[in-house]
Amino acid sequence: MTPIITAFECSPDRGKGLARDMRIRWALEEVGQAYEVRFLSFRDMKQPEHLALHPFGQIPTYEDGDLALFESGAIVLHLAERHAGLLPTDANARMRAIAWMFAALNTVEPPIVERSMAWLVEREETWYAQRQAVLDERVRRRLGELSGRLGDADWLDGDFSAGDLLMVTVLLRLQSSGIVDEFSNLAAFVARATARPAYQRAFQAQLAAFRQAASAGASSPAP
Amino acid sequence: MTPIITAFECSPDRGKGLARDMRIRWALEEVGQAYEVRFLSFRDMKQPEHLALHPFGQIPTYEDGDLALFESGAIVLHLAERHAGLLPTDANARMRAIAWMFAALNTVEPPIVERSMAWLVEREETWYAQRQAVLDERVRRRLGELSGRLGDADWLDGDFSAGDLLMVTVLLRLQSSGIVDEFSNLAAFVARATARPAYQRAFQAQLAAFRQAASAGASSPAP
Repeated sequence: MTPIITAFECSPDRGKGLARDMRIRWALEEVGQAYEVRFLSFRDMKQPEHLALHPFGQIPTYEDGDLALFESGAIVLHLAERHAGLLPTDANARMRAIAWMFAALNTVEPPIVERSMAWLVEREETWYAQRQAVLDERVRRRLGELSGRLGDADWLDGDFSAGDLLMVTVLLRLQSSGIVDEFSNLAAFVARATARPAYQRAFQAQLAAFRQAASAGASSPAP
Repeated sequence: MTPIITAFECSPDRGKGLARDMRIRWALEEVGQAYEVRFLSFRDMKQPEHLALHPFGQIPTYEDGDLALFESGAIVLHLAERHAGLLPTDANARMRAIAWMFAALNTVEPPIVERSMAWLVEREETWYAQRQAVLDERVRRRLGELSGRLGDADWLDGDFSAGDLLMVTVLLRLQSSGIVDEFSNLAAFVARATARPAYQRAFQAQLAAFRQAASAGASSPAP
């Protein structure tokens, strides 16, 4: 059976590839697994049918036969366990790659999302400049630590893994800020990852979906 | 060999059990694995020796023979994979439990941490009341969705799992806010989990460590 994922009918990032279905598309492309996409409007995402799949009413989800999953980290881990190419075979190296998956989602992403949320909901407030400086510093500190660990290696721990994949999708959320470019090894890390053919295929697929929806007049959900 | 974890020499929560070593202690107690603790001052955590173990200079870490891990989610997953009791044996149910681990750390925890951070660094600012209301609503929305999914079940998906363990440690961070108590099934879920003998043993162990450090005059690191 071909697995089915869900994605925004019309992505709020207008095809920049920052929505979380991109993580799953990229992982699927890395392991060479074909997939189908069910597109959801913001309204669809909050309906009982989708809430049965995703308790928080978000995308992506993943369905394959009698397995239904939510949470992009879990879906990427599932794909990495079922197919070769995204996790080392050595048991210790495998766990270290998984540690980088959690680091991407629980240590590096939260301050980046908080920074984006502040821009979305507070940028007209009098205090925004003051808060933005604090949030930028917090992000910079995390990226400095990440940069220190990466050093001049290509990937975070040995070969490219699901840990690198998730970390890069998190860093891409800072694209418009210029903060990643302050760390030349991190900028090169992101460039190296996004040059992978699997990333490119995934990116083009989500962009094509956005363009088709936009030309059909679908509206983006609130981010 | 007995695994070694790291924890705060003097926890900033003053023994309330909210530091992330508690997740590891609890998981170790659930699976019946003895462990040792190396206590670190805030200064120790930023030294090269610890940064080699934890790129972001935090606690906890986990060392067992030639395996060294960071990220509490990854350490709990490692323990759950090595020992029986924290993940179902059925492959699909196992992945669903892992999805709840990621949901706890990537979907539920970030708005809760953002709320706590605001209290820590912004509570004297003129805008704090306005922001707090927004942050409380964001947390409430997530908890409402979680409550809707839990319904009248004891645990999030079948038997108690590493997903429940992590989710409860995340909800405990809201302890002083009263927000969890607005959802009676979530309050019962937390009470059910923290009544487990393994939780109680882990809680007492970290409390004893805090009391010993405090009576020896150690100072808490900045949270």
